[in-house]
Amino acid sequence: MLFMVDFGFRVQAKDKKTKARVGEIMTPHGIIQTPAFVPVGTQGAVKSLTPEEIRECGTQLFFVNTYHTYLRPGLDVIKKFGGLHQFMGWDGPIITDSGGFQVFSLGRRGKGAEVADENLDPSSVSGSRFHGLDTKKKMKPDKILSAPRAIASLVKISDEGAEFRSHWDGTKHFFTPEKAMEYQWVLGSDIHIAFDDCTPYGLTHEKARISMDRTHRWAARSLSANAKIKMQNAKLGKPYQALYGSVQGSIYEDLRKESAKFISTLDFDGIAIGGVSVGETKKEMVDVLDWVVPLLPVEKPRHLLGVGEIDDIFALVARGMDTFDCVQPTRLARVGCVYINAASRKWEMDITKKACAEDIRPIEEGCECYACQHFSRAYIHHLFRVKELLAYRLATIHNIHFINSLMEDIRRAIEDGSLLDLTKQWL
Amino acid sequence: MLFMVDFGFRVQAKDKKTKARVGEIMTPHGIIQTPAFVPVGTQGAVKSLTPEEIRECGTQLFFVNTYHTYLRPGLDVIKKFGGLHQFMGWDGPIITDSGGFQVFSLGRRGKGAEVADENLDPSSVSGSRFHGLDTKKKMKPDKILSAPRAIASLVKISDEGAEFRSHWDGTKHFFTPEKAMEYQWVLGSDIHIAFDDCTPYGLTHEKARISMDRTHRWAARSLSANAKIKMQNAKLGKPYQALYGSVQGSIYEDLRKESAKFISTLDFDGIAIGGVSVGETKKEMVDVLDWVVPLLPVEKPRHLLGVGEIDDIFALVARGMDTFDCVQPTRLARVGCVYINAASRKWEMDITKKACAEDIRPIEEGCECYACQHFSRAYIHHLFRVKELLAYRLATIHNIHFINSLMEDIRRAIEDGSLLDLTKQWL
Repeated sequence: MLFMVDFGFRVQAKDKKTKARVGEIMTPHGIIQTPAFVPVGTQGAVKSLTPEEIRECGTQLFFVNTYHTYLRPGLDVIKKFGGLHQFMGWDGPIITDSGGFQVFSLGRRGKGAEVADENLDPSSVSGSRFHGLDTKKKMKPDKILSAPRAIASLVKISDEGAEFRSHWDGTKHFFTPEKAMEYQWVLGSDIHIAFDDCTPYGLTHEKARISMDRTHRWAARSLSANAKIKMQNAKLGKPYQALYGSVQGSIYEDLRKESAKFISTLDFDGIAIGGVSVGETKKEMVDVLDWVVPLLPVEKPRHLLGVGEIDDIFALVARGMDTFDCVQPTRLARVGCVYINAASRKWEMDITKKACAEDIRPIEEGCECYACQHFSRAYIHHLFRVKELLAYRLATIHNIHFINSLMEDIRRAIEDGSLLDLTKQWL
Repeated sequence: MLFMVDFGFRVQAKDKKTKARVGEIMTPHGIIQTPAFVPVGTQGAVKSLTPEEIRECGTQLFFVNTYHTYLRPGLDVIKKFGGLHQFMGWDGPIITDSGGFQVFSLGRRGKGAEVADENLDPSSVSGSRFHGLDTKKKMKPDKILSAPRAIASLVKISDEGAEFRSHWDGTKHFFTPEKAMEYQWVLGSDIHIAFDDCTPYGLTHEKARISMDRTHRWAARSLSANAKIKMQNAKLGKPYQALYGSVQGSIYEDLRKESAKFISTLDFDGIAIGGVSVGETKKEMVDVLDWVVPLLPVEKPRHLLGVGEIDDIFALVARGMDTFDCVQPTRLARVGCVYINAASRKWEMDITKKACAEDIRPIEEGCECYACQHFSRAYIHHLFRVKELLAYRLATIHNIHFINSLMEDIRRAIEDGSLLDLTKQWL
């Protein structure tokens, strides 16, 4: 099959003491060295940065949300441009989700809705409070619903799919596994994710099973819908777009294992693990990975959805994850929290604190990011204090660079057999 | 005198039909080709842009406000860095004002307070509404006074100087001509402006005279304070920092002429014309320039404070101004107004309008700015619509580039003798 050339994964090195592995994911838009951090550009932009900056920060793959881009700018616009790559001016690989997470996090009172999507968070710079951009203007800003509580009952889930209301204007929409596939092909991302039923934290075992079973039925439907579109597009000479199946099952060992086995039997290009970011403790995340990963096919790439604090990274890499996305670095940047290599401080420094006001040092000595190469803590502190937008950019650049650079070190350590040493140094 | 080498001005070409001239201002941080537009980086940053971007937009000289940087980060911090250049990472020329405009616009009910300082404007992105940066944070944002009305009586002016309250925290401060000189030497800008009494629009002739006389006394004091500091610094081998005197006199012909003559007799390196942006009509601005400019020494550079809409630019260049600063391009960018070469539309396009939603063209065909070279109207429209910070950056880059590029055309036209043709093409 010709299109198989466009996507592939190979493991290049394995750590002897953990399940960590170094590999390469080949996509039509380039190769991703794994394990890799995947910054989130929810609405088609990584908060405040240009594509060049995203790349200069060491980013290889970037995450865009189907739910958000489906609502705005809308798929007709994206189609006109021939896909997200052309629309955003990013020529590297893109991964999109199925839209499921946002659809469900809007409609359920799970903690995840609040913590994991910075664009549904009313306090977000890019969320409803960021009205600086359109004040003093005839343009009427759309009424943004204060998700998720205000519209907690706006999602209706059936076996067919999920009906939901836009968080922008309340209009009704209906997502199905088939539509989620079609939409992602329009977006033109290199990696798609099957439509899944994302459950909130704290679900009973019974409800978690019902939801997981639905996810499995939807996985099969996603796969079959995808096969048709893929075939048509291959005939037209369009590049291959890969599909990952999604493992669910909440925090229940039996369900997680069942889900891992079931999803592994299907002909997906890779495996995504969902529902881990939604309010579980770190211990629970580790448990889920310990149950699931041994049951996954070693030859397929694995993506962990929505996780990526510094200590998480060591835990998930050691458990054999290849990629993971997280809004944490960009979200922290927005409030002036910048990463530093100091476990005692949980790897974070609040640059808005007075201690930084006259500090002529860069955020992190030796850091090669643009912010550290050009500016002092005092200057960035000042920018935050007087609310200059450049503050946010510089902190975002630093945080993304910091994690990407850590991932480089981790890849090297896995190859060298020194991952545990590196982990000890950091944690 | 050794330090005279560091600053100079020479006229290289004159237009035959107008008073327009092409020249070069030499400063310790580089040469400025005039006439030149000067973007405003009020608080030590041109809204959202890095120094590299500011330069890539064609910027030669950049305006920083003494009042703002005096309050935050404070002069002690700037001193620690050896000046604004090092603090901000900008190695080109900088011009600072005396602080007078902000001090007085806070204390008087003049229209200027609202229109000309984007950092005292409560609806500004960087003003009080831009709380996105510090929400969800333990950091308590300072209470920003809703200038200017709330603290209309907080400025006390005497012949000695002006006592005012910080718009950030209400603390008391006292500016004098001597202090304004000292502060600007600490900031290390290449061009300083003498402390002046900035009057609001609509002043009676009697009050305008009192204020102008005060400005003249303060001009003399500024000059003498400056001479001392200059001499000391020259002995220490520090680079020359130039001082412009400020012409005031409201909208009264006799006062403006008297002020122009008086300021011209003093040993300033250049002349600034103030009080023109403060609510006057365009006709009144033109009148002031027609009265003032013929009385100014031809060999000194002339700066117009706070003016720079597209049609203003042709008017002020034709009347012999060499540099001018204006917040308009950055302010318009913030609300999605981008410049286009279309007089019928007042050179502005509202990119947030639906007409741009699917428009695959750049903002302006043929424009060489980063935004136009990389992105479509549709993408920038989308970014504004979903309130992504990148929107603001791209629009700012375009608008600054647009004016700087127009200034290049204007300089070429003056040299070619085709300024009137260019003016006709544009207006």
